[in-house]
Amino acid sequence: MTRERLYLYDTTLRDGQQTQGVQFSVADKVQIAHALDRIGIDYIEGGWPGANPTDSDFFAARPQTRATFTAFGMTKRAGRSADNDDVLAAVLNAGTPAVCLVGKTHDFHVTTALGITLDENLDNIAASVAHIVAKGREALFDAEHFFDGWKANPDYATACCKAAYDAGARWIVLCDTNGGTLPPDIQAATRAVIAAGVPGDHIGIHTHDDAGLGVANALAAVTAGARQIQGTLNGLGERCGNANLTSLIPTLLLKEPYASAFDTGITMDALKGMTKASRMLDDILNRVPLRSAPYVGASAFAHKAGLHASAILKDPSTYEHVDPGLVGNDRLIPMSNQAGQSNLRARLAAAGIAVDPKDSALARILDEIKAREDQGYAYDGAQASFELLARRELGLLPDFFEVKRYRVTVERRKNKYDRMVTLSEAVVVVKIGGQKVLSVSESMDESGSDRGPVNALAKALGKDLGPYQACIDDMKLVDFKVRITQGGTEAVTRVIIDSEDSAGHRWSTVGVSPNIVDASFEALLDAIIWKLVRDRMQAG
Amino acid sequence: MTRERLYLYDTTLRDGQQTQGVQFSVADKVQIAHALDRIGIDYIEGGWPGANPTDSDFFAARPQTRATFTAFGMTKRAGRSADNDDVLAAVLNAGTPAVCLVGKTHDFHVTTALGITLDENLDNIAASVAHIVAKGREALFDAEHFFDGWKANPDYATACCKAAYDAGARWIVLCDTNGGTLPPDIQAATRAVIAAGVPGDHIGIHTHDDAGLGVANALAAVTAGARQIQGTLNGLGERCGNANLTSLIPTLLLKEPYASAFDTGITMDALKGMTKASRMLDDILNRVPLRSAPYVGASAFAHKAGLHASAILKDPSTYEHVDPGLVGNDRLIPMSNQAGQSNLRARLAAAGIAVDPKDSALARILDEIKAREDQGYAYDGAQASFELLARRELGLLPDFFEVKRYRVTVERRKNKYDRMVTLSEAVVVVKIGGQKVLSVSESMDESGSDRGPVNALAKALGKDLGPYQACIDDMKLVDFKVRITQGGTEAVTRVIIDSEDSAGHRWSTVGVSPNIVDASFEALLDAIIWKLVRDRMQAG
Repeated sequence: MTRERLYLYDTTLRDGQQTQGVQFSVADKVQIAHALDRIGIDYIEGGWPGANPTDSDFFAARPQTRATFTAFGMTKRAGRSADNDDVLAAVLNAGTPAVCLVGKTHDFHVTTALGITLDENLDNIAASVAHIVAKGREALFDAEHFFDGWKANPDYATACCKAAYDAGARWIVLCDTNGGTLPPDIQAATRAVIAAGVPGDHIGIHTHDDAGLGVANALAAVTAGARQIQGTLNGLGERCGNANLTSLIPTLLLKEPYASAFDTGITMDALKGMTKASRMLDDILNRVPLRSAPYVGASAFAHKAGLHASAILKDPSTYEHVDPGLVGNDRLIPMSNQAGQSNLRARLAAAGIAVDPKDSALARILDEIKAREDQGYAYDGAQASFELLARRELGLLPDFFEVKRYRVTVERRKNKYDRMVTLSEAVVVVKIGGQKVLSVSESMDESGSDRGPVNALAKALGKDLGPYQACIDDMKLVDFKVRITQGGTEAVTRVIIDSEDSAGHRWSTVGVSPNIVDASFEALLDAIIWKLVRDRMQAG
Repeated sequence: MTRERLYLYDTTLRDGQQTQGVQFSVADKVQIAHALDRIGIDYIEGGWPGANPTDSDFFAARPQTRATFTAFGMTKRAGRSADNDDVLAAVLNAGTPAVCLVGKTHDFHVTTALGITLDENLDNIAASVAHIVAKGREALFDAEHFFDGWKANPDYATACCKAAYDAGARWIVLCDTNGGTLPPDIQAATRAVIAAGVPGDHIGIHTHDDAGLGVANALAAVTAGARQIQGTLNGLGERCGNANLTSLIPTLLLKEPYASAFDTGITMDALKGMTKASRMLDDILNRVPLRSAPYVGASAFAHKAGLHASAILKDPSTYEHVDPGLVGNDRLIPMSNQAGQSNLRARLAAAGIAVDPKDSALARILDEIKAREDQGYAYDGAQASFELLARRELGLLPDFFEVKRYRVTVERRKNKYDRMVTLSEAVVVVKIGGQKVLSVSESMDESGSDRGPVNALAKALGKDLGPYQACIDDMKLVDFKVRITQGGTEAVTRVIIDSEDSAGHRWSTVGVSPNIVDASFEALLDAIIWKLVRDRMQAG
């Protein structure tokens, strides 16, 4: 049997940006576009050029991708030609190979929201699509409110789709804009568009999750004949979000009838990057990853029920619908049992620390991790701190130096030019090889602006570490994440610091305290000590 | 047309308890049971009596409910009679009107996990169900792995269901235990059970969300003829969770064909309690409510896109699939750089600030918001700071006081008992009504532990605000979120602070600076000023 091609269209950078609380920078957008390209998405919708400064800047700096880069905009307004529509011109000026234009297909919206006649709207659709095609671009028509429109006036809604298709649109994307349509209606309406003369391999589906059916609705449209799916990573998007590609992609590749019926641009190897891509997006957004997320969540393959866990040990297929490794995720079995210790040994081995399976330190390390996680520590994202904890229990951690005390001050006041400025100053006292060393630093970058207390502490701490100076000079702090979390019965601050050295190695450390400065200092200290351990291992 | 009865069965207290990180106390379970009863759920599954101390204690103290209280257990083991099975006896001893027993229906599990013959398993099912019925209880049979079993050996899987039905089970619950089945297979298998002689009004459906299809699968089974839906509040449950009743119930009551076809035990009035019930559960679990949750999430009716917001002002049905009031939720028009003037006016109106559409201040406010968002501010999650910004532009912000300078110190050193401790101290100088006031505070909670520099600043700032003292005393800081973001060309810290007063009002403010302490101070200051504005508005 020949497989049909099923296309994936990502709108994380456009509809995903409409998520409440989400605001991508240009750098964020570039990073996400590269991640989508690595997965093998067919189309990347980058945003709406001209709608806001970030989107305009992003298109000006858009990355080279294998995926077809797409700009989003809307059909021309009535009473002017496509040539003279400045909004449309801004979209075309972005120079992308494909352009997706949203237009009305629900009669009520045409007459009420736009205040034009139904025929004028049909003309706007046809003229706008023809204009895009005439400019040599691939045209997509986003049929806004299509499913609601189809229920209200099926002939008009399908006529809008047909008009765009006849004008040369490569794809007619049926949009459940308000997100409340149910799967049987999605199927019936999609079939109606095909019956009206738009072939299924020119039909896309764009759904939202307002009734918890975004993924099911996308699949229902494919069953009816649609051959392009739009969605977002982690289901970002307006209101309840868009169809979640992070859930859809594994289903399409791993489950029947899809796996045998379709080819996508995604390889089984790329699928293994799914969990990582999902976590990366949460990282950019500083969101706590949803543990229960299908396929990629930290709990997606966690077996809590006792009966399940023991069956899993015999044969994972007893309580797992797919192998977690296929999507780059891991099985999780409570740390207390045997599986916990073998996991731990594997992790230590990866860090170059071989431990005998009978070593009682393994149980002590697990206990210590569990106790610290209760206090608010998280070792999943802080491998370097985990290694230090294990080395301490195993007696493999040298005493490099001891911090006796520190003090950091932040002051805000008027300077001599009567402008409000902030200043940070840190004093750190350490003991190295029997000697007490006092260091002081203030935090000021080249432009004279204050970088804050953590920066001042890092500078003071790194300033005079005697024999370790060269090693410390080689590292820099590249990221700093802060989260308020529960530590026992009280709220504590968890700080995760990412550091990097000149060789490009990157490592993460964690600190926890009710005091944000102290949590940061703890993570900083771990970052330095891990670097010293690593340099010593490489030297020796 | 006569409506058919569709029953709802909640397993939040049993399958929901298998969520990773969830551990209900007896008091939690009582509170949740009452909430479920207020909604009008037909069956409440309370747990597995005898399986753990909490469940046993809960059944001993189970609340009086209108709903049918149900105990969960498993079919008797082979080689002993139902009368002599101690596990089954413990379940019956809980004395509930209904008992739900899980049993195998997948041949592979029967022979591999149980290690018994297929006929022995059929006998166990029939004998266990008959035993429950003989004791005068309503019997439910949970057909474990039914859908996987049906794919592997359809005759055997349906024979297990028929055996339970023939033995007198009121409900045969078809379980997608591993959660990976797709809607068309759910439908086909459900229809097969009906064809095998189990009437649809004796069939229940129990689905999980491992492919993001838990809700869709439950609806697919109803379409095929099932008349009982099992699920949990907020979709709690093993791995990715169970079918989410918080999504399913509004769909069943508000959308066709369900609304006209079925009666449930839930009134339209009780439906208005859905959002509150969902938040209550998160409260018990100390979880941050999922903003994007269908129907009940804080973002479920948030309109971020400018085009959507302006249409919403004319007619909410343009971009809302249902009226948020029907589920007890609210419409939200957040601010963002995608927002137009109509978003802005709607948001100002909601804050009690009426502005003429022609007022030039609207454009100035938007410009100011855009400029600040470029610096790293985010007003989506900080409505109070947004209001203050708008009031400033509109000349509606009184001069309450002026901060002249502050200084905060964090110190870590050994105390007199030779233990490492941290101390934070803040000095704030403000000018109120021409008078300069110096305040100093240190940060120390009742237990003597340091709460950090932001806490010290908040205490110093609130300590001596003269005429505003009572107002400040009435507020407390309830949450504190930090992220590193891009502000122009450099990394800056964005702090969002949530505050609350004694009347339960909650408001969010934002501060941005390269210095985390300074960003926090800015957000704190906004929180206090917003409270002063609000109190003055209410007084006047």
